[in-house]
Amino acid sequence: MKALLLVAHGSRRKQSNEEVNLLAEKLAQVCSTQYGIVNAAFLELDEVLIPDGIRLCAKQGATSIIVLPYFLNSGRHVVEDIPNEVNGCLAEYPNIEISIASHLGASPLMMELLISTANTVK
Amino acid sequence: MKALLLVAHGSRRKQSNEEVNLLAEKLAQVCSTQYGIVNAAFLELDEVLIPDGIRLCAKQGATSIIVLPYFLNSGRHVVEDIPNEVNGCLAEYPNIEISIASHLGASPLMMELLISTANTVK
Repeated sequence: MKALLLVAHGSRRKQSNEEVNLLAEKLAQVCSTQYGIVNAAFLELDEVLIPDGIRLCAKQGATSIIVLPYFLNSGRHVVEDIPNEVNGCLAEYPNIEISIASHLGASPLMMELLISTANTVK
Repeated sequence: MKALLLVAHGSRRKQSNEEVNLLAEKLAQVCSTQYGIVNAAFLELDEVLIPDGIRLCAKQGATSIIVLPYFLNSGRHVVEDIPNEVNGCLAEYPNIEISIASHLGASPLMMELLISTANTVK
């Protein structure tokens, strides 16, 4: 079963982390035919960190996990921190294929999203 | 003339800030009929901060500016820091209407962008 693990930075503001959890729930509904498991985890500042998220996906029966960084830029978190956290988990799950997707700013859909967000102002 | 000011957090990693500048350039090309001016600015960790970005839009002849937060979540930066920076500039530009758009995670297009980004993995 394919799993998607949405990984956000994490914020001291609980509401912000809750937004990410809600987004993962919505995502689970929308892409359930493709990804039987969808969870959220955080790089820091939350109780559910990346190793916890991977563990949960594994427990739920994941045979592959796509880690989806909920980050806009290829900053240090995307280039170093998330890969380091994920790599640290690989030995524990030799039978699960774990991959990391691109940061969101690399998407060709970003332009459309930016313009439509700007256009929602009055 | 309508202006769009893309505001990112800013990173110590120059390449990350450069990504945002390039995105603003692309955005300028794509939405030139709607926004005659498009610039990028940063909340911190770059030479071009929010007041600099607003000043540049004003110099270029903006009559209205939409500040577009390049942020995914409604964390402290979106809820407090960007509004504080923008509000601090209002008195200086009484003839320019300055508004702040939503954070990007609030867009209905985000779901599609997330799924397509996940699907680019092998």
